[in-house]
Amino acid sequence: MRMAELSERSGVPTATVKYYLREGLLRPGRRISATRAVYDEEHLRRLRLVRALIQVGRMPVATAREVLVAVDDEKLDHHSRIGAAVWALPDDSPAAPPEDSAREAAARLADELLARLGWTFGLASRDDSPAYRMLVGALAGMERSGYPCTLADLLPYGRAAGELGAVDLDMVERYETGSGQVEAAVALTVLYEPVLLGLRRLAEAEESNRRFGKAG
Amino acid sequence: MRMAELSERSGVPTATVKYYLREGLLRPGRRISATRAVYDEEHLRRLRLVRALIQVGRMPVATAREVLVAVDDEKLDHHSRIGAAVWALPDDSPAAPPEDSAREAAARLADELLARLGWTFGLASRDDSPAYRMLVGALAGMERSGYPCTLADLLPYGRAAGELGAVDLDMVERYETGSGQVEAAVALTVLYEPVLLGLRRLAEAEESNRRFGKAG
Repeated sequence: MRMAELSERSGVPTATVKYYLREGLLRPGRRISATRAVYDEEHLRRLRLVRALIQVGRMPVATAREVLVAVDDEKLDHHSRIGAAVWALPDDSPAAPPEDSAREAAARLADELLARLGWTFGLASRDDSPAYRMLVGALAGMERSGYPCTLADLLPYGRAAGELGAVDLDMVERYETGSGQVEAAVALTVLYEPVLLGLRRLAEAEESNRRFGKAG
Repeated sequence: MRMAELSERSGVPTATVKYYLREGLLRPGRRISATRAVYDEEHLRRLRLVRALIQVGRMPVATAREVLVAVDDEKLDHHSRIGAAVWALPDDSPAAPPEDSAREAAARLADELLARLGWTFGLASRDDSPAYRMLVGALAGMERSGYPCTLADLLPYGRAAGELGAVDLDMVERYETGSGQVEAAVALTVLYEPVLLGLRRLAEAEESNRRFGKAG
């Protein structure tokens, strides 16, 4: 397809597609003349992923580029790339504060939780994972804020996340090709995050109403 | 207690406490002389909440002030304030794009989901809730990104959120006073969000490893 059709089918304006091409977020099309190039379904799929990361996930271009490097990492076998790409999604929490006793205690608590859940990953050292650092940073922040939490508080969170992880991988497996699955894993991870946070807040309002609200 | 002890016990530097006082995020202490004031346990608790919202939840000061208005709303009965305060927590997703067909379809899907979950809230019109707008905005973004989702995809998310809502309210009920509970509801909602997102990403990596990873 030509650029105009790629833009039309993705809903991404031509100027934005050209910007993504210049920034290396989208591979060049196949040249058919000095001024013309054609694009295929893979371009369309990649464009959707880039749009999801940047426009919905509000990722900076440089960060999206790093995520795509993990998505395209041919050194990994076809399927481990799914875990690796999600594992490497950046943490947009505040910059990690200096190591302190709260952070050490948080890392111990996180490790205890992952051991209880039986999660071993098998991919890489968990310390390299932004997702792991996000968890530890959040637990340290709770400790520092005077709202410490315990393993018992965290277990239901871990179990709920585990159920959603399986649901997410089911969605990923609907995509047929290997690279389609890797891209979907990254896109669905990012796109469902505000869904999950919004639903949790609504669930709290609902639960509060059930427990404390005036009947009628 | 004096300002120095308030700072020491909360871990918030004196200069920051003074800034929160000037910005009206913390009520003035009780004056004991022209230059001295004393603070109590309620000040300490409020200071922890403000710290959680601003430092961990990265909320702008003006937004934190709005949240505290909901927390302190005396027009509501003691307990409905919990739901109302969480309900009113701001959505930091990108500014809502103009109404379009994706947004209309997303609102219908969200309403269908809430009906299936049996959530009625009983607080106010759901359209006024940032949490509801966050959900609808996220669903519209998925549609626009070419990753549409269905009611069947969303139900496990709704059920997981419902379970966590009950867990969260159990944590809130550990606090004894009414205003302590409202403050805890807001703080715990914000503080557990990165915990939940980090755990879901780790769960996906774990699940991917289980399904596709090389044994050993």
